[in-house]
Amino acid sequence: MTTPEITPAADRELVLTRLIDAPREALFRAWTEPELLKQWFAPLPWTTPHVELDVRPGGSILFVMRDPDGNEYPNRGVYLDVVPNQRLVTTDAFTEAWLPSEKPFMTAIVTFEDEGGKTRYTARALHWTVEDREAHEKMGFHEGWGQCADQLAALAARI
Amino acid sequence: MTTPEITPAADRELVLTRLIDAPREALFRAWTEPELLKQWFAPLPWTTPHVELDVRPGGSILFVMRDPDGNEYPNRGVYLDVVPNQRLVTTDAFTEAWLPSEKPFMTAIVTFEDEGGKTRYTARALHWTVEDREAHEKMGFHEGWGQCADQLAALAARI
Repeated sequence: MTTPEITPAADRELVLTRLIDAPREALFRAWTEPELLKQWFAPLPWTTPHVELDVRPGGSILFVMRDPDGNEYPNRGVYLDVVPNQRLVTTDAFTEAWLPSEKPFMTAIVTFEDEGGKTRYTARALHWTVEDREAHEKMGFHEGWGQCADQLAALAARI
Repeated sequence: MTTPEITPAADRELVLTRLIDAPREALFRAWTEPELLKQWFAPLPWTTPHVELDVRPGGSILFVMRDPDGNEYPNRGVYLDVVPNQRLVTTDAFTEAWLPSEKPFMTAIVTFEDEGGKTRYTARALHWTVEDREAHEKMGFHEGWGQCADQLAALAARI
């Protein structure tokens, strides 16, 4: 048979990783409990006033972000994989199980691993095209997700 | 909050349904056992000489189709949902869990339901764009999937 070629995802991927001084369980809670997610998920002064999470494979995600002028931006997605305290995989390719969205932009793989008494937190954004990866980088992926990771770390340390 | 508008999937969807004189269990087997899938999955004289199926959510799919001239066409995908004897959901948006493919073309939702001692077999193809749905229709969705459904029915009746 023909051996299919698989293009590596590397040129379509963005990654952020941090060593956070909080247990995996606290980080997982901050990612999966709406009242906690609201507290860190948007880079301030943006906020996340409304969050609905059905945390299971195929479960729906809705979060609404609000800019400093009060404009709101709803985002829908679906969980692809959920391993408590270890891994979450989400995508915006579906608005619910399994309705294709208007635009499959990215899949996020977030992992929580023990490392020297702290937690290695890694968030990967995988895109379908190099153009989307570049656009996401220009939109400020590293700054935005970095600021959110700081907000997440601060919250996880006190819950 | 803003109420997000959801575009109905109807204009991006193709559907084929048949009442098949075989039990749900036989149809599910024909869909999930590689040696059975090979016998019906391509509209003859096309064939499906190579099939690998990891039948679980997140599991990989590989099938290679061969045209009458011997050219082979590998296809990769992933299972999104598996409910034995009831439902299978697959997509080509990922080549494995959870690596974005080169082109998210469609998600297939296949259901098996009891109906008057037979099985209502329904295969839905949901696309990300209207253009892809139209292209799929022009590629011969109804004829191709229809011929395959006939081949599937013939196989399921004798296993």
